Amino acid sequence: MDDVHIQWAEKVQLKDPILVEGLPGVGNVGKLAADYLKEKLGAKPLATIYSKFFPPQVYVSEEGVTRLVSQELSYRKGTGPKERDIIILSGDYQGISPEGQYELTERVLSVCHDLGTKELYTLAGFAQGRVIEVPRVLGAATSPERVEAMKKFGVVFSRNDPGGGLIGASGLFLGLGRLYDMHGVCLMGETSGYFVDPRSAEAVLKVLAKILAVSIDFSDLEGKAKEIDRIAQKIHEAEQRPPDAPTPSAREDLGYIG
Amino acid sequence: MDDVHIQWAEKVQLKDPILVEGLPGVGNVGKLAADYLKEKLGAKPLATIYSKFFPPQVYVSEEGVTRLVSQELSYRKGTGPKERDIIILSGDYQGISPEGQYELTERVLSVCHDLGTKELYTLAGFAQGRVIEVPRVLGAATSPERVEAMKKFGVVFSRNDPGGGLIGASGLFLGLGRLYDMHGVCLMGETSGYFVDPRSAEAVLKVLAKILAVSIDFSDLEGKAKEIDRIAQKIHEAEQRPPDAPTPSAREDLGYIG
Amino acid sequence: MDDVHIQWAEKVQLKDPILVEGLPGVGNVGKLAADYLKEKLGAKPLATIYSKFFPPQVYVSEEGVTRLVSQELSYRKGTGPKERDIIILSGDYQGISPEGQYELTERVLSVCHDLGTKELYTLAGFAQGRVIEVPRVLGAATSPERVEAMKKFGVVFSRNDPGGGLIGASGLFLGLGRLYDMHGVCLMGETSGYFVDPRSAEAVLKVLAKILAVSIDFSDLEGKAKEIDRIAQKIHEAEQRPPDAPTPSAREDLGYIG
Amino acid sequence: MDDVHIQWAEKVQLKDPILVEGLPGVGNVGKLAADYLKEKLGAKPLATIYSKFFPPQVYVSEEGVTRLVSQELSYRKGTGPKERDIIILSGDYQGISPEGQYELTERVLSVCHDLGTKELYTLAGFAQGRVIEVPRVLGAATSPERVEAMKKFGVVFSRNDPGGGLIGASGLFLGLGRLYDMHGVCLMGETSGYFVDPRSAEAVLKVLAKILAVSIDFSDLEGKAKEIDRIAQKIHEAEQRPPDAPTPSAREDLGYIG
Repeated sequence: MDDVHIQWAEKVQLKDPILVEGLPGVGNVGKLAADYLKEKLGAKPLATIYSKFFPPQVYVSEEGVTRLVSQELSYRKGTGPKERDIIILSGDYQGISPEGQYELTERVLSVCHDLGTKELYTLAGFAQGRVIEVPRVLGAATSPERVEAMKKFGVVFSRNDPGGGLIGASGLFLGLGRLYDMHGVCLMGETSGYFVDPRSAEAVLKVLAKILAVSIDFSDLEGKAKEIDRIAQKIHEAEQRPPDAPTPSAREDLGYIG
Repeated sequence: MDDVHIQWAEKVQLKDPILVEGLPGVGNVGKLAADYLKEKLGAKPLATIYSKFFPPQVYVSEEGVTRLVSQELSYRKGTGPKERDIIILSGDYQGISPEGQYELTERVLSVCHDLGTKELYTLAGFAQGRVIEVPRVLGAATSPERVEAMKKFGVVFSRNDPGGGLIGASGLFLGLGRLYDMHGVCLMGETSGYFVDPRSAEAVLKVLAKILAVSIDFSDLEGKAKEIDRIAQKIHEAEQRPPDAPTPSAREDLGYIG
Repeated sequence: MDDVHIQWAEKVQLKDPILVEGLPGVGNVGKLAADYLKEKLGAKPLATIYSKFFPPQVYVSEEGVTRLVSQELSYRKGTGPKERDIIILSGDYQGISPEGQYELTERVLSVCHDLGTKELYTLAGFAQGRVIEVPRVLGAATSPERVEAMKKFGVVFSRNDPGGGLIGASGLFLGLGRLYDMHGVCLMGETSGYFVDPRSAEAVLKVLAKILAVSIDFSDLEGKAKEIDRIAQKIHEAEQRPPDAPTPSAREDLGYIG
Repeated sequence: MDDVHIQWAEKVQLKDPILVEGLPGVGNVGKLAADYLKEKLGAKPLATIYSKFFPPQVYVSEEGVTRLVSQELSYRKGTGPKERDIIILSGDYQGISPEGQYELTERVLSVCHDLGTKELYTLAGFAQGRVIEVPRVLGAATSPERVEAMKKFGVVFSRNDPGGGLIGASGLFLGLGRLYDMHGVCLMGETSGYFVDPRSAEAVLKVLAKILAVSIDFSDLEGKAKEIDRIAQKIHEAEQRPPDAPTPSAREDLGYIG
């Protein structure tokens, strides 16, 4: 096995496909968005990525069946004249070491380059450290032209955010992508950073849907967002309660979302 | 020397051998079980595995003789019409880094694949964080068919355990095993997680013996379990005693078990 | 991509070029000095160095444009009979692991060796743990002859400083440089070690300018130094103020310098 | 540069040379002993070992001259009929990661194997956690025959020490040495473990000198031991003194020994 092992589900011809990346991270925004996009577009399995840069771990389904942690590439061919072919990268983990991040990103970019990708969008959360009522979508892009183009879709480019740059896969895909002649944009949904945030993922996806010219039904994601609101409300009430009152396990519930 | 160095004791032809893995981990259950199985089946040395993914360490015997830390493959040919050939993986350590876990597991799977292995059982402890009177054997398997087959042997598949999946060699052997066309099961003996647990190892081995259709004498393992009970009882009594009373070195005794 | 990836901006013929290294470190002295030298000499881009030994990070400009973290080689051809060709190594990070430090340093030395480099100067800060009014420039060199030669430029060789040797790129370039038949000197500006120190960088550069026989205008660096003085003064005053008085964000300002 | 880079000082023919290893560790016993042996036998430089598994560091001499951290192989040809050729491994550091330990040890063994080495002695300290008046020399060996042979030289084989085995280079050289058909012994001088211990190094060397049938003058090492005693005495007195009395910098003095 190589350090990064790619198991192909299908050999497919794509036309100028756009890569969309969404992996676990702040508020799980990127992963929530990519998984939702994959589901709603009916994207098909393209390849599974195993790597020694992931934890040595299998997940176990409720039925007791194991699955090695991985990242997945899915694809969806455009169905109308305005729709482009799309490749989606989702998965259980980012690489767990800096070297692993580089090697994984580089390998996925190489594969997507061979499939004809010249453009990519990376999805992430941006932690504001406070409750966000209406999340804005912040942006960073590989060229001034892309920055301008994104502003038309409502993406906010803030002079000071993100101050320290982007750390992790969403930034690295843009940075290393330039070595593969790819241009791209990182879309960051504002989030508190305290728990998984479907509402922020929805904000990001709404912008991305406009960019990709695809139509997506957001009701399931809104349902998830309301569930989080309900739990957050329970936690808030619990914290207001006198200390001897029994505490419902609201915090635990949060673990099941996302 | 390669990153993983295999020193063969014997070149042997095996027929459709089953791999049984049991390495140090929670309650040392997997290691206790694999070592006991190896001893009671009279398994013969097949290969010793040295690796830079183990600690830089030698053990010293009571006589003063050194031995480099390692993992060992042993084998035992089936003696009756119902008995299958068995390969047992035991050892001093799991790989001490995530990358090391992947590389070691991958190498052992590759070797066992070449020896004809298509089926594997991994043995582990499952920490419940409380005293376990009668340990159940929990399971996880690579396919729904295996899950069903295991239920007949009394293996418990619990919807929520293990919640976060399996981390370490026992999970990874199942996960990576699929890349070598192997199917398998992880058998996890419930244990407190506080000390080495021969009783949990016994529970796991009793299930495994039925699966492998081999007969094993458990009296030595039961002896070890009673010794642990005795020491645990001494610790319990010591903790009940007034603080100025002399404390027997019961906790230290625990170090000699297993 | 290799572990260290070099993207050439230009293929250039240099004559016996001197390598000057200045990367982030104590008081950011080396980086400040190398960046300033690069700017004032009008050095041209030679190569950009990307590596998995850097963090997986992109910086985002105020306009929202991303840039993968890197090191840069620049060059400047000597313009007079006394001026030598110069290569400057600057960048965002040193390697973030010991192995990474060795691999990056070795690769840059190899490249500079191919370009004809036989002599190098590394720039660094030396933390004294106290306020330094007039920073001295301490030295370490690869030969007794170089030590003597440096004394004429005012470089101080202190018997006990640096006591534990030099850790990081500035030392490693000298140490590994010997394997490439290079000789060199580390110039260390004294600094408190508490914040970025343009004054220490200026002291280092003034010595280096004499060694390189180049003329540099230091007014911008002096401006930066005064700005730091002003902020440090504000902090000092804030700390003298009664605790209920409002605190200006002087400490935050420090982040913008350098 | 390779991960481990060997720079030969001389190509030499040796006859059945014995390898003696002594690197920094507990009480610096191994390093003190190997450095002293090298000096007193007048051993000549054989090779310098640089590696990315050492820290990225240079030492600076009192004169200001840098030296990259390294390990060194020295050799000394036997001068009488009973004296064997000897190779001594000394140095600044052991490998700073487990993988580094394996790679460095393996490389030195490989080199010494090519030079004809079949026998090795590793020197170390054994921390007892209490003041040791007359240090015993504990042993561990690669075979029962070696254990018996060592007992005649006064080496103590204690049933429980070292309980957890030997961690680090001294153990690893014995363990990996078996893969190169080498047999050997680890000689461990008892030491408190609190500071560098020339007396323990002397005890180890006295045993080794008998084994190697060489004659060594121990007066310098005894001088060092007395200096340590004197400093330890000063520390002891300082700790007995009332808290407001001025404390001489005795602890600091300890840093200069060894």
